[in-house]
Amino acid sequence: MAKRALAAVLQEIRPPEERPLRLEEMEIPPLEEGAILARVVMAGVCGTDVHILHGHVPIRLPTILGHENVARVEAIGGDRPVLDITGREVRVGDLITWLPKSCMRCYNCTILGDPAKCEHRIGYGGWLPADRHPYLVGGFAEYVWLLPGSDVVILPSGISPEAVVLGDALRIMVHGLERIGGLDYGDVVVIQGCGPVGIMGLLLARDAGASRVIVIGAPASRLALARAFGADETIDITQVPVQERIQRVLELTDGRGADVVLECAGVPAAVAEGLEMVRINGRYLIAGHYGDAGKVPLNPHVINKKQITITGVWSATNRHFLRALTLLRKVHVDPLITHRFTLKEVNEALIAAERQEALKVVIEP
Amino acid sequence: MAKRALAAVLQEIRPPEERPLRLEEMEIPPLEEGAILARVVMAGVCGTDVHILHGHVPIRLPTILGHENVARVEAIGGDRPVLDITGREVRVGDLITWLPKSCMRCYNCTILGDPAKCEHRIGYGGWLPADRHPYLVGGFAEYVWLLPGSDVVILPSGISPEAVVLGDALRIMVHGLERIGGLDYGDVVVIQGCGPVGIMGLLLARDAGASRVIVIGAPASRLALARAFGADETIDITQVPVQERIQRVLELTDGRGADVVLECAGVPAAVAEGLEMVRINGRYLIAGHYGDAGKVPLNPHVINKKQITITGVWSATNRHFLRALTLLRKVHVDPLITHRFTLKEVNEALIAAERQEALKVVIEP
Amino acid sequence: MAKRALAAVLQEIRPPEERPLRLEEMEIPPLEEGAILARVVMAGVCGTDVHILHGHVPIRLPTILGHENVARVEAIGGDRPVLDITGREVRVGDLITWLPKSCMRCYNCTILGDPAKCEHRIGYGGWLPADRHPYLVGGFAEYVWLLPGSDVVILPSGISPEAVVLGDALRIMVHGLERIGGLDYGDVVVIQGCGPVGIMGLLLARDAGASRVIVIGAPASRLALARAFGADETIDITQVPVQERIQRVLELTDGRGADVVLECAGVPAAVAEGLEMVRINGRYLIAGHYGDAGKVPLNPHVINKKQITITGVWSATNRHFLRALTLLRKVHVDPLITHRFTLKEVNEALIAAERQEALKVVIEP
Amino acid sequence: MAKRALAAVLQEIRPPEERPLRLEEMEIPPLEEGAILARVVMAGVCGTDVHILHGHVPIRLPTILGHENVARVEAIGGDRPVLDITGREVRVGDLITWLPKSCMRCYNCTILGDPAKCEHRIGYGGWLPADRHPYLVGGFAEYVWLLPGSDVVILPSGISPEAVVLGDALRIMVHGLERIGGLDYGDVVVIQGCGPVGIMGLLLARDAGASRVIVIGAPASRLALARAFGADETIDITQVPVQERIQRVLELTDGRGADVVLECAGVPAAVAEGLEMVRINGRYLIAGHYGDAGKVPLNPHVINKKQITITGVWSATNRHFLRALTLLRKVHVDPLITHRFTLKEVNEALIAAERQEALKVVIEP
Repeated sequence: MAKRALAAVLQEIRPPEERPLRLEEMEIPPLEEGAILARVVMAGVCGTDVHILHGHVPIRLPTILGHENVARVEAIGGDRPVLDITGREVRVGDLITWLPKSCMRCYNCTILGDPAKCEHRIGYGGWLPADRHPYLVGGFAEYVWLLPGSDVVILPSGISPEAVVLGDALRIMVHGLERIGGLDYGDVVVIQGCGPVGIMGLLLARDAGASRVIVIGAPASRLALARAFGADETIDITQVPVQERIQRVLELTDGRGADVVLECAGVPAAVAEGLEMVRINGRYLIAGHYGDAGKVPLNPHVINKKQITITGVWSATNRHFLRALTLLRKVHVDPLITHRFTLKEVNEALIAAERQEALKVVIEP
Repeated sequence: MAKRALAAVLQEIRPPEERPLRLEEMEIPPLEEGAILARVVMAGVCGTDVHILHGHVPIRLPTILGHENVARVEAIGGDRPVLDITGREVRVGDLITWLPKSCMRCYNCTILGDPAKCEHRIGYGGWLPADRHPYLVGGFAEYVWLLPGSDVVILPSGISPEAVVLGDALRIMVHGLERIGGLDYGDVVVIQGCGPVGIMGLLLARDAGASRVIVIGAPASRLALARAFGADETIDITQVPVQERIQRVLELTDGRGADVVLECAGVPAAVAEGLEMVRINGRYLIAGHYGDAGKVPLNPHVINKKQITITGVWSATNRHFLRALTLLRKVHVDPLITHRFTLKEVNEALIAAERQEALKVVIEP
Repeated sequence: MAKRALAAVLQEIRPPEERPLRLEEMEIPPLEEGAILARVVMAGVCGTDVHILHGHVPIRLPTILGHENVARVEAIGGDRPVLDITGREVRVGDLITWLPKSCMRCYNCTILGDPAKCEHRIGYGGWLPADRHPYLVGGFAEYVWLLPGSDVVILPSGISPEAVVLGDALRIMVHGLERIGGLDYGDVVVIQGCGPVGIMGLLLARDAGASRVIVIGAPASRLALARAFGADETIDITQVPVQERIQRVLELTDGRGADVVLECAGVPAAVAEGLEMVRINGRYLIAGHYGDAGKVPLNPHVINKKQITITGVWSATNRHFLRALTLLRKVHVDPLITHRFTLKEVNEALIAAERQEALKVVIEP
Repeated sequence: MAKRALAAVLQEIRPPEERPLRLEEMEIPPLEEGAILARVVMAGVCGTDVHILHGHVPIRLPTILGHENVARVEAIGGDRPVLDITGREVRVGDLITWLPKSCMRCYNCTILGDPAKCEHRIGYGGWLPADRHPYLVGGFAEYVWLLPGSDVVILPSGISPEAVVLGDALRIMVHGLERIGGLDYGDVVVIQGCGPVGIMGLLLARDAGASRVIVIGAPASRLALARAFGADETIDITQVPVQERIQRVLELTDGRGADVVLECAGVPAAVAEGLEMVRINGRYLIAGHYGDAGKVPLNPHVINKKQITITGVWSATNRHFLRALTLLRKVHVDPLITHRFTLKEVNEALIAAERQEALKVVIEP
């Protein structure tokens, strides 16, 4: 078993262009019963990582970012079998990923019944500190050290590391769709935002029975990707002003508005705009506001009169990840990975993620 | 059959204190097949009437206000039986009320399947003009002239005229509860606003399985009424500032927030306040914004993080009125009628309704 | 306008092989305001037609069968525009279909809010008698005479007559999916029966987010068609006994059972079998028992212990037909029409429909 | 701490009248960290206990029955605080109850998200064997020995031991109501069966917004109790034959049938009868078939045509118990305890429970 590992440690919150991540060599703690040491194969750079570096998402410092990971099992602590969340035994050499771990004992896990809102969730890649056991707590590193009882998933056949990395955004949309009660067959869906969450929303809506999907966002390169992945119509927010965007959606829907609008933009103003695009009795999902981006003036009369239902979605549970595999098996999503970096280039990777030319950036240590 | 009738006609939008309603004697048109002439027994003064006089709700002038009515059938046009919405034959002498008439042919009625959002709804008391047939189009008059095919309900036994007048607000809350998926048994419910809609929300929540109902509003007299009608806790907005109100709700709910918050206030700021009172995965109903009272800054991150569901409700359908009778049979609501006026005092009635000492004002021509 | 039309009249209930339909020449009544005379282009032969000829579905005699129709408008009564259910004006020369007409006035239409259960539904093709106005009341004829106010749909671009005929079964499955609350994304779906309803269920499940669809039925030719149209697995009931069928579904689902089972077989025993195939908390739709085929012994303990939800679905509303167009635009369903006959061969068409080698039989007068 | 305890041990499945339970003196094992020793104050005799003695519910022998318990904490193992399911610290002297313990790690707990269907549920009173640690595994004893991590609830103020014992049936009905989507406000509810589950269903339906509750069962003494607790109508199955019972429900519902029928009878034939009592689009809950009582012939056409939704409910989760407290605070249920016995009379208690004159039997050791 390896003794030491390189890791990109974040000591202080600073924006990507200031290159805040520093490579450090860390000692690998010995494995206790049920723990797993795994060599990172691919780590996705998520918009949340960028938000963290701008101070919009609270984390514990120092830490190692990287919460969308695929790794190969190098060693397993102890003799007892370690099972993945579907009950398969994990073995050395397996390609795995792992999900945020809900405690299954807190009020939200047991009484509320929603592990996505666990009060003591353990997340690798920003939510565990790197200056105490088990130290290797994020994917921007050569190795990760997984605590006993981690929610590991052995990659099923037909699922590439790229698919798993993109599956992190997808599982949130699977959860979001569940929270709005699923699509009604034939719904017209508008998607605000064409980052990874928006594009996953597009693919999901198409596979879940939408009759038409309209994607609104920028830049043009991402919208082109959206069209290549099946968007029936795209609207470039750098070219078309707000009122015309609303008008365009109404034109495409006989003046009635879309059945469902999925907000994947993370910009408060998008909510005001999106509510104008929803039809009477339509549904609006807020999926892009994981970080606090501030307020927007909204008119309750619009919600009242159109009887709109607005719902928020927060992260996802293991079920949603497993269900997300459905799509990842059907659609070849690898081309959505537009940029690849080595671990040494981790700050460049974050800069690329911040500039929106990239759709999805990964690090391959 | 009577030939002429007094009616309080609204020619011009002006606030209640300017006494905009003028009594006029109008000719009663002869009855065509299926039409009904009915003598008004009681007409409720609704908050919407006040909003109309302030120009916040669009109507067609001239008109006769009064959309919460009980009347006694004086004559029926033609020979064929006229049925109420439950299939009972309407006869001279019956006490009746009538509901907004949905066309059942438009897109919203047929394809959307929601007659509450009918595109051609016929409402007495502000939505039909008084300068053309059938002229007597509102309850603030001696008589009303009901068009053939009106959605009439013969008052069931055990239902007083007072109950029917209050039932107009209640049916909206029955609809609202339906739109949020009903209460889960044992829900803690916060009600924002203690006008007739809020008080009806209180009674309904109590009878639909709430474990505790907290009413927030003013003035003290209405809150006293709320307590008398079963509120477990009331908070006076003239005495307790916003942050303390939120704090109080959190204290009463182990720091978690209410399961359900029903907005019955009509004030945009109430929505921002109420969203702070809802628990994780809780539900928020916007029922008070029938009129356009403007915007309020809201933070989408709050909705996203707490996974709140917000829903609007608009008016109601015949089903909701019939279901509202359940409550009106169980609870003696007549004491909620705090002020009674004659038709000649119609402007005074509106002034009383505007000043919030009154809970519910009626006119008995 | 044509004066006379050939029609296949059913005078007496007798099985297909006794050739019960007789061609008669009938006079075409003059058109009243809003009525439409249309020349039949294609009429589907439905399993229900076969059930009618075996006396399992009550109808009024004499009648003209044929309730899945596409026709070309030959004349329109009166001068006023006649609109289809989406608001488009119907014109001479348009290809149209029409749906069962709900009254929108009865208890089920208004209070229950479900036009699929209209108490006075008007259906062409067996539910109107052929010995009184308007006589031409079914699609197995040269012409149909559509009553004013009929729920007509002008064929949208990209929708073939074949697609419309198959859409009659599809709209029922769209309705059925709605009644079970839609698929959860990634559901494993079992379909019992591979007639037109089952095949439409297969196509719909695939397009509504199923991860895997298993079709159970016979004969082999239909199962081959199911595989060609995307079934992941088929089980031939003539080759595999009941217990093995159940076992096979359990094997394919890690021993848990399917998330959703759609009964499209019309055989009571299928329900007992299907309940063994549903997982804990799974859903079971009964869509195949439009006719009364008798009882089957079921064990309530199975439903109790697995917390299964069973739902029935009856016909569909206009909304479901419009939503069904989503699929008919995406999938080229024409190959599912396996047999075509002329009007003179109408009895042969029914015999072919009864023998299950055919998947879908149509008549092209 | 006590050293020895009397317990009624079941060694062999035999019916109550054969007095299968034998009092044995057992050693009390020393307490490990987090374990609780509690002196039984009251133990309910459940219909399930009777079914167990008839061999209809699989259990592990030898065992100690008694799964509806209230006990007083005598000792707590170790020094660390032990919390109840709401987070309150359990202390010596507290009155407590405890719920079946779900593992929160199996597929059903985590992926399916339903701890009521936990694959490894630990239940006291029949599901743990009495011949191995911790031996005192049921409420028909002087003491119970609760495993560390048990789902304990400190009795909230205002909740009597009697209420807790009855709450065991109530929580299942709270769960059942949740599974059918809650009552729609004003629903007419039929309850089949007037044992504790049926009576709890009655109380719950009344408090959850039913407009009318009809209870069908026997004997007369229980129906009298049902009326005393608010049933609007009762039907005695020993006096009124099946067809007349159905007829009576139709008469009471304008010929339409009940909105909701709750099966709490445990008799397969009740399901066939009940489906005839449900209205179009109505809902049917199977709550009484915890034990396997065999099959009943049902007609799928009835479900199909009326679009009935049938759902089963199995046990309950902690949430449902906490929600059940709402009712137990509002309604004084103690009079529903009709028979009380000492531990020495445990076989008599079971005989009384089997004879249906008793509504609810308890043992007070």
